[in-house]
Amino acid sequence: MAPLRIALAQIDTTVGDVSANAAAIIEAARKSASAGAELVVFPEMTITGYPIEDLALRASFRRGAASAVESLAADLLEAGLGELVVIIGTIGPERANPDAPNRLPTNRAVALQGGAIIAEYDKHHLPNYGVFDEFRIFAAGNETTVVDIKGRRLGLAICEDIWQNGGPVEALADADLDALIVLNGSPYEQGKGHIRTELAARRAAQVGAPVVYVNLVGGQDDLVFDGNSFVVAPDGEVLARLPQFVEHLGTWELADRGEPPHTARVFAELTEAEEVYRAATLGLRDYIRKNGFASVVLGLSGGIDSALVAVMAADAIGGSGVVGVSMPSVYSSQHSKDDASDLAQRLGADYRVVPIEPIVTAFHGQIALDGVAAENLQARVRGMILMGLSNQEGHLTLATGNKSELATGYSTIYGDAVGGYAPLKDIDKSLVWELARWRNNHAIDRGEIPPIPESSITKPPSAELRPGQVDQDSLPPYSLLDEVLDAYIEHAEGRRELLARGYDEAIVDKVVSLVDRAEWKRRQYPLGPKVTALAFGRDRRLPITSRWREPK
Amino acid sequence: MAPLRIALAQIDTTVGDVSANAAAIIEAARKSASAGAELVVFPEMTITGYPIEDLALRASFRRGAASAVESLAADLLEAGLGELVVIIGTIGPERANPDAPNRLPTNRAVALQGGAIIAEYDKHHLPNYGVFDEFRIFAAGNETTVVDIKGRRLGLAICEDIWQNGGPVEALADADLDALIVLNGSPYEQGKGHIRTELAARRAAQVGAPVVYVNLVGGQDDLVFDGNSFVVAPDGEVLARLPQFVEHLGTWELADRGEPPHTARVFAELTEAEEVYRAATLGLRDYIRKNGFASVVLGLSGGIDSALVAVMAADAIGGSGVVGVSMPSVYSSQHSKDDASDLAQRLGADYRVVPIEPIVTAFHGQIALDGVAAENLQARVRGMILMGLSNQEGHLTLATGNKSELATGYSTIYGDAVGGYAPLKDIDKSLVWELARWRNNHAIDRGEIPPIPESSITKPPSAELRPGQVDQDSLPPYSLLDEVLDAYIEHAEGRRELLARGYDEAIVDKVVSLVDRAEWKRRQYPLGPKVTALAFGRDRRLPITSRWREPK
Repeated sequence: MAPLRIALAQIDTTVGDVSANAAAIIEAARKSASAGAELVVFPEMTITGYPIEDLALRASFRRGAASAVESLAADLLEAGLGELVVIIGTIGPERANPDAPNRLPTNRAVALQGGAIIAEYDKHHLPNYGVFDEFRIFAAGNETTVVDIKGRRLGLAICEDIWQNGGPVEALADADLDALIVLNGSPYEQGKGHIRTELAARRAAQVGAPVVYVNLVGGQDDLVFDGNSFVVAPDGEVLARLPQFVEHLGTWELADRGEPPHTARVFAELTEAEEVYRAATLGLRDYIRKNGFASVVLGLSGGIDSALVAVMAADAIGGSGVVGVSMPSVYSSQHSKDDASDLAQRLGADYRVVPIEPIVTAFHGQIALDGVAAENLQARVRGMILMGLSNQEGHLTLATGNKSELATGYSTIYGDAVGGYAPLKDIDKSLVWELARWRNNHAIDRGEIPPIPESSITKPPSAELRPGQVDQDSLPPYSLLDEVLDAYIEHAEGRRELLARGYDEAIVDKVVSLVDRAEWKRRQYPLGPKVTALAFGRDRRLPITSRWREPK
Repeated sequence: MAPLRIALAQIDTTVGDVSANAAAIIEAARKSASAGAELVVFPEMTITGYPIEDLALRASFRRGAASAVESLAADLLEAGLGELVVIIGTIGPERANPDAPNRLPTNRAVALQGGAIIAEYDKHHLPNYGVFDEFRIFAAGNETTVVDIKGRRLGLAICEDIWQNGGPVEALADADLDALIVLNGSPYEQGKGHIRTELAARRAAQVGAPVVYVNLVGGQDDLVFDGNSFVVAPDGEVLARLPQFVEHLGTWELADRGEPPHTARVFAELTEAEEVYRAATLGLRDYIRKNGFASVVLGLSGGIDSALVAVMAADAIGGSGVVGVSMPSVYSSQHSKDDASDLAQRLGADYRVVPIEPIVTAFHGQIALDGVAAENLQARVRGMILMGLSNQEGHLTLATGNKSELATGYSTIYGDAVGGYAPLKDIDKSLVWELARWRNNHAIDRGEIPPIPESSITKPPSAELRPGQVDQDSLPPYSLLDEVLDAYIEHAEGRRELLARGYDEAIVDKVVSLVDRAEWKRRQYPLGPKVTALAFGRDRRLPITSRWREPK
């Protein structure tokens, strides 16, 4: 028996854009056939995009996806790709659900060949923790599926199925598989690559055959999928790996039984700083692109946060698509203005200067504000200028706040928090500095001019909302602050646990009270009571980035 | 055997405020004992408040709740209430969960007597649709509980348990119950009262005994609980009913077997308009109060929306706690200014006039804006004035937009959408008019001056952002618009279904495209990619209104 050549199609789908997703599948199928593959595997929910949230509950959307899969099967046949087996993800029909009052669809994989669906599999394990909400929208499958392709027995699974013990993988342990095919929509987290390969190796050992793991790549709202698809053997050897953060088509050959496993190219994983930088930049690029924007606008203060966001934006869509606005007040230092201008020049950005003083003065002429209210006013005037330019010229507004600031509430609602996307929302200040240094060194390594002015990296951070203000007047040093934030927020440690780790009591109490208050303030709007029936807000969860339109 | 007197304690708990909730339980237990009750039943998750969202995942919170229940049992005994059986809701210990990677706590009911827990029950059916997210935070129970009180066999269930077929109620069908006790946190929806009693009557018939249904009352973030607790017999007769939207302690006697069932007071349900008005006003009052505010600020345009919100706020916290700000522009009509001033006077509100012209002019001096960007600018200047007053003087800012406007995007982000709470978020324009008329008539019926100036109700609605503008220049009549919105949003009907109902094609297409675009715009901020680990936003879902603080 000849080896079976399998293509791993790591593509970047768009939620709701079923025709573009279908076109991308056909294109990758064509390349797979040209590369001699007999099977091509795509990520989870390929035709619909992922995650679809409450679009799953709309009948017209489900009908649209079902008819797109039918057309896709026919189009593949017509394109002369009828021999190739194409495994994609989609949404399955509704079924009764013992745990919910409503019938729900399934999260499904289908194998297409010869213009028809030759096999179907419905995901068993629906993740419902962290960023996942699948109990809300899907009914669970309870059957296993083995596809026979040229005499090879291939089991099917979808993402969470391999993260839980029990379920389809255990049920397939005695199914005499040649390989286990897994379709994934697994979001990027720092260090997750190793966890995935080790987990998949355990499943490979359970079924006694390699696992072919194909992951989605691209940004979708507040998630980034890193690709990083791979094949792993039962003994843990990585037999093939695709690159991170880019679309890629890789092929790998399933050897005959009893033969040693074949290997294919194993792309090296990125360093920690580069990985995070690429993740954030890909998320930003896809948010801009998939939402139909061609340019962004942001405030350039001369500080490190806005500098890093501007560089990410220039890397995502080119410097000419970036509008950087310096909005100096009476408290802005000359070095801040110089650094902002220097940065814009390095990036080739559209640089503008809009002094806020006349507007701030006009406000003070109408209402009496002082203290924090007056500081917030400056931030809000800046936010309104950015939104005005966004409305007038069509740019997406970027917010430049970092995770440490947002967590502790050092951010003005309707002020510097204004924007359609906040690239540093999940990147704390310590990591901001690390990424800035990495990006400059990366430029130096390639013989380019470092994009970020050195003084933006080295000077003490300040909001410049009153004379001589610096962040460390009112916050612990960022290296310590970020450690405590990580323990309190990400690991849900309580005060008792934080003190047991040896942190100073005054600092713990300060951080905990800042975070609790900031969480509360951040969540205040938009909300109102559920009164007449299902209201907006919590009830209806739709993707932001979605190309789904009601069919004519 | 004497009849068993049962108290139904319909109380308004606060999420996270375990000591205040415990104090409210002791107070209601004391009254129950004074009223001769031998058993008092409280709503779902009494000690923690409901819903607690991701607070359930925090170990320090679970420890706090557990120790509060222990202290409560001891305090009841010490208060001389040791004889009384007290059934409350709380959070149970963590257990392994076959469907999730993490151990999760349960949603639990406990019966306290003599200083100890004499029975426990863990909720079987975890709702995970609409506003509910319980699969995310709870593990399901799988045992039934029958408590013996003075020789009566009382089964326990929690809220969703009676909404699903199967589960604990069916398992109790042959348990020879004298009554089924149900602890509830069931949010208000129009017309839900009848659905609840009919459903509970079916369960009563299944177990062959009355159902004692105790529901939470009060506002919690974007939910309102209406109370409306009741007792229903197997034949569907309502044996007792408590009032809607207020705290209340009612008693009812469980008769001997074979004796005809006792009845107690059955409060009449409210009319449709009054019900919605009370729901929205209670939600607003509790949001203000539970978040520690004593006053609100809002813009008064002279239109119907801001008038209705101002009246609701005055009914919630008194007119003297309401700051109404008229912010006229060059496009504001004299009648608008007169109506705003007239309204404020009727309510006894703190009325201010802040013309926006000098500020708008200062903006135009710094950046070139026209068309929609210039209209948005006016709305944003008004938003900034309200937020400035909020920051300076400590008021909660109210947004006055209604559901029809928010759904179709006739609202400016960071402009009139500014605020910590939007009382009309789920009330469409047609209902706004109905509530305004009801409130004025209600005043007349009581011999009071109608609070809303008649011309605010009768004049054609206009945003007054350009000369002569009225809403119906660009929108279908509200009566038609609101019908299409309801079908498209609340009932998830697609274009095909809307046309089949006979709506005009051009109107359907206009409404669908407005709603889809507005949903997208409304959801844009605050978001950014999940990059380093669990990020803010979708990942960490905490209640806004919560008094939980890390224990010292």
